[in-house]
Amino acid sequence: MPEQVKYDTLKPTGNKIPLVGFGTARIPPEETEEVVYNAIKSGYRMIDGAYLYGNEKEVGKGVRRAIADGIVKREDLFIVGKLWNNFHSAKHVAPIFEKTLDNYEFDYIDLYLVHWPVPSEYIDPKEFLGFCPKGQDLKWERSPMQDCWRELEKLVDAGKIKNIGISNFNCQLILDLLTYARIHPSVLEIELHPYLQQKRLVKWAKKENIHVIAYASLGNMVYDEVPENLKNVPKLMEHETVTKIAKKHNRNPGQILLRWAVQQKITVVPKSVKESRMKSNLDVFCFELDDEDMKDLESLNINARFNDLVENMYGFELPIFE
Amino acid sequence: MPEQVKYDTLKPTGNKIPLVGFGTARIPPEETEEVVYNAIKSGYRMIDGAYLYGNEKEVGKGVRRAIADGIVKREDLFIVGKLWNNFHSAKHVAPIFEKTLDNYEFDYIDLYLVHWPVPSEYIDPKEFLGFCPKGQDLKWERSPMQDCWRELEKLVDAGKIKNIGISNFNCQLILDLLTYARIHPSVLEIELHPYLQQKRLVKWAKKENIHVIAYASLGNMVYDEVPENLKNVPKLMEHETVTKIAKKHNRNPGQILLRWAVQQKITVVPKSVKESRMKSNLDVFCFELDDEDMKDLESLNINARFNDLVENMYGFELPIFE
Repeated sequence: MPEQVKYDTLKPTGNKIPLVGFGTARIPPEETEEVVYNAIKSGYRMIDGAYLYGNEKEVGKGVRRAIADGIVKREDLFIVGKLWNNFHSAKHVAPIFEKTLDNYEFDYIDLYLVHWPVPSEYIDPKEFLGFCPKGQDLKWERSPMQDCWRELEKLVDAGKIKNIGISNFNCQLILDLLTYARIHPSVLEIELHPYLQQKRLVKWAKKENIHVIAYASLGNMVYDEVPENLKNVPKLMEHETVTKIAKKHNRNPGQILLRWAVQQKITVVPKSVKESRMKSNLDVFCFELDDEDMKDLESLNINARFNDLVENMYGFELPIFE
Repeated sequence: MPEQVKYDTLKPTGNKIPLVGFGTARIPPEETEEVVYNAIKSGYRMIDGAYLYGNEKEVGKGVRRAIADGIVKREDLFIVGKLWNNFHSAKHVAPIFEKTLDNYEFDYIDLYLVHWPVPSEYIDPKEFLGFCPKGQDLKWERSPMQDCWRELEKLVDAGKIKNIGISNFNCQLILDLLTYARIHPSVLEIELHPYLQQKRLVKWAKKENIHVIAYASLGNMVYDEVPENLKNVPKLMEHETVTKIAKKHNRNPGQILLRWAVQQKITVVPKSVKESRMKSNLDVFCFELDDEDMKDLESLNINARFNDLVENMYGFELPIFE
C-alpha cells in the first residue's frame, strides 16, 4: 500500500501541491522512465522536472505508463517544468515551453518555474549542453524578467500551465516581480535545509502567498562538487544532531531532514533511484518532530549554500545570492 | 592646507568620483549648513545626500556658501541625491527629483541613486516622516523598477543628472536592471566594512563597470540600533585587529577602516560633525596598508549587516538581502 502524500494549497489558484514530490535532476535518461514509474507506484504524486535535466521525454514516458497502468490519473499528478536560462527572451519562452510539453506529451503542466534569474544568450536547443559550457564565461542576454513573465502569463491564459513560479530568486527580484505580475507566482523553489534555513525569506514568501519548495533537502550529500569554502563542512546527513534525532524517532536521517521541511509546510523533492529509499523519503507524514528537535535542527544554520554559481561547480562566477 | 582627495573614474560617463566623500545622514538640519561648509573647507569634494535625511536644503546652503566664498567651484564638487521609496512610480520620480534639485538650488546633480529597492505607497512630501512610520507594516506599491529607471534616464537626457545608480541593490535585481537599462548604472552604494565584505558582489559590480560606494564603513558604531542577533558583536572600531593596525601605522582606527575600502578603489562617505574628525577621515591617501594588514582585515568578515530592514530598527520586517 503506497504512502499517502499530504498537500498544501497554492494560494493564487487554489490548486493542491504535494508536500513531498519526486526530484529528477541527475537521473540518467536511460533510467528515468523506470524510476519515475516506480516513484508513482510508490505513492509520489508530484514530479519535479526541468529542461536542464535532459530527461523530460523519459519523465513523460514514466508518467504516461503509470497512467496507462491505472496507477494514477493525470489530474491526480502535479507535474513541474522549468524554463532554462537561455530561453528567457520574449520570443523564446513559448517555443521552449512547447518543447517541454512535447517531451512530456501532456496537454498541460501544473507548475512552470523560471529556473534561475540568469538571462543568458539564446542557444539552439539542438546544441544545448547544460548550464554553461566549461571554460566559457556566461554570456548575458538583455531579456528583462518582466517580458519573460508576460510570456508565462500568456501560457497560463492559454490553459497550458496551471501555476507559474520562480526558482533561485531572492527577495529583491521577487518584490519587483510582484509590482508587475498580473498572475501571482504560486511557488518559490530554493535550496533549503538546516544548514541554509533562510527563515526570513521563507516567512516573507508565505506572507506574500508564495509556497516554498525546498531543493537539496539532504544538504551537501546531494552534490559531487560544492563551493571551495564549504568543502570541509561535515555532511548534514551525518551530523550528530540529525542522527541523534533519527535514532530517537527510529527513522533514518533523510526522513528527519525531509520532515523538518514538511512540518513547516514546505514541499520537498528528494530524488532516489532505489525503491526502498523512494519509499522511506515519502514516509514522513506519520511522525512528528517535537519542539526540542526543531530547535536542535534550527541551531544547525550556518548559511551554507552548496549550489552556488561558482567556478569549480559551473565554470563561471556570479554572486547571484549576494 | 586641505587634504587632496583622490578620484576614480565612473566607466559609463567618464566622470570622476572622489574616493572619499562626506556623508550627511543623521546630521540635524540646524547643524547641516555649517557642517557641510566646513567639510568642503576641509577638502571634501563629494557630498552624499538623500531626500530621506531631511536636510537637503541645508546641504545646498552649505555648498553654495562654500562656492560663494571661493573655496570651490560647482564643477569641482560631486553632489549625490537619492530617490526615496515612496516616489518610485513613473509619475512621481521627476517631481520628487525636482524637489531635491530645488532644495539644493543647483542646476544639476552628479549622481542620483535609487535609495532602496523597496517600492512603497506614495506619500505627499508634506507628510513625509521617514522610512516607515513606526508600528505600521510597509505598504507596497506596484512600481516596477523598469519604469522607475526609465524616468531617471529621462532626467539624465535632460541634463539634470550626470550619473544614475542604485543603492542597497543585490546581484539579481542589478542583473535584471542591466537587461533593460539604456543608461548603465554608474554606482552601487551598499553597506560595506570588514565585518560585511561582500567580496564577490564588489568584484562583479566592478566587472560590470559599476563603481562601489561603501556606507557604514566604520561598522556598528554608526547605528544606535542594530539587528537583535548582532547586538553582541564587538564594535568594529574597537576590534583588536583594527586597533593593532592603527597603532602600527600611527593612525586612528577610523582611518584604517576607510583606507581598507579606498585601497580597493571603493568610495567611502564618512560623516562627522567635528572638524578634526572630518580632516582625519579625509587623510587616508598618504599611507598604505600592506598585504598582511589587508589579510588581517579580510579575516574579520562575518557577514554582519547592521543596516537591515528589521522590526527593531525600522518597525517592519523585510528580508531584502535574502
